[in-house]
Amino acid sequence: ELFEHLLAHFQPKLLAGRRVLMTAGPTFEALDPVRGLTNLSSGKMGFALARACVQAGAHVTLVSGPVSLPTPQGVTRIDVQSASQMHDAVFGALPGQDVFIGVAAVADYRPSQAAADKIKKSADTLTLELLRNPDILAAVAAQPDAPLCVGFAAESRNLDGYAQGKLQAKKLQLVVGNLVQDSIGRDSNAVVLYDAAGRHPLPPASKDDVAQRIVSHLAGLLK
Amino acid sequence: ELFEHLLAHFQPKLLAGRRVLMTAGPTFEALDPVRGLTNLSSGKMGFALARACVQAGAHVTLVSGPVSLPTPQGVTRIDVQSASQMHDAVFGALPGQDVFIGVAAVADYRPSQAAADKIKKSADTLTLELLRNPDILAAVAAQPDAPLCVGFAAESRNLDGYAQGKLQAKKLQLVVGNLVQDSIGRDSNAVVLYDAAGRHPLPPASKDDVAQRIVSHLAGLLK
Repeated sequence: ELFEHLLAHFQPKLLAGRRVLMTAGPTFEALDPVRGLTNLSSGKMGFALARACVQAGAHVTLVSGPVSLPTPQGVTRIDVQSASQMHDAVFGALPGQDVFIGVAAVADYRPSQAAADKIKKSADTLTLELLRNPDILAAVAAQPDAPLCVGFAAESRNLDGYAQGKLQAKKLQLVVGNLVQDSIGRDSNAVVLYDAAGRHPLPPASKDDVAQRIVSHLAGLLK
Repeated sequence: ELFEHLLAHFQPKLLAGRRVLMTAGPTFEALDPVRGLTNLSSGKMGFALARACVQAGAHVTLVSGPVSLPTPQGVTRIDVQSASQMHDAVFGALPGQDVFIGVAAVADYRPSQAAADKIKKSADTLTLELLRNPDILAAVAAQPDAPLCVGFAAESRNLDGYAQGKLQAKKLQLVVGNLVQDSIGRDSNAVVLYDAAGRHPLPPASKDDVAQRIVSHLAGLLK
């Protein structure tokens, strides 16, 4: 704790007084009381970024899916499970925010219905009907008084194409792109930043270092 | 570590020299490089039971799905992701085992195909075709020279019915039953043991205490 305090003390206060709302982690879309659809996001990148924002002087609210990570000092954390819960928590906390950063790996689809009791296996095959989840980041960015919006693109291929497409289609100011094979579950990350000025690759580094560089870039866009 | 050593020293050696093979945690059935079907099992009960078996003098091999838990001292751990991988790891380690304990919450179904690249969302609905997974515990218990087989039943209702059904249908020597609402993700557990002699409820206790009582009961069945 002392170490985090000291680190925070020596960071430049690039986001002094700014209000930052973030999402992190996976979502869990229940099929029944125990089973569900999820993904391999550990939440580490989002939690590192929340820490870096606080160290840069921001007020940070972090809406987190199910992860096993401690809350960084000074961060206000709201725990949720499903994409719908994350959507509602984000819109509840949105008024007055200067920046929204969608780091969470939100499930694109949810089961059309969740069983109240545990499903008993019987048939050799099973068909699941899935419905599209709300796109939280696009919905925030489409608000008339939207904050500066930052998205993450985790892709297994064609990173430039997907990340630049996301920047334009969702009307974001910044997209942080990475290849899933470089990132998921790891402590380090190799990312490329995409904004209106173009493509800015960052050197591979720890998620904490990458988070500080994202904060620096973000602070430049806020001016 | 010292504390674990001391604890181990004072446990009665009820399983001295016995070889115990176990599974623990959830499985993760991939839909694509990042998404998949899983469940809320934390692996805590299985890891506590592995620790208790080692403390009782057993040689323990633990096949674990994706969990964020440290390996108990003295346990040989094999990490897997899917039910098929867990099945193969169990059968690879099976020869010469005295006891098999299936604690893992193995996914009953897997997607009929996993995409090599991340699936891009497009349609408003999506249909997933799922195939039945192998039943690892039933397959082990059906071997001609099967070890003593212990199953776990985590149910949201009708625990007695499902647990006793599992004991008979899979030809197990012991089933540890609990209600998911009493157990999943928690550090404590309230369980009922089911064997050929009947139903034996244990008082609610920490997962470590419950594990020791299961070991005592198991040692009685081995005699």
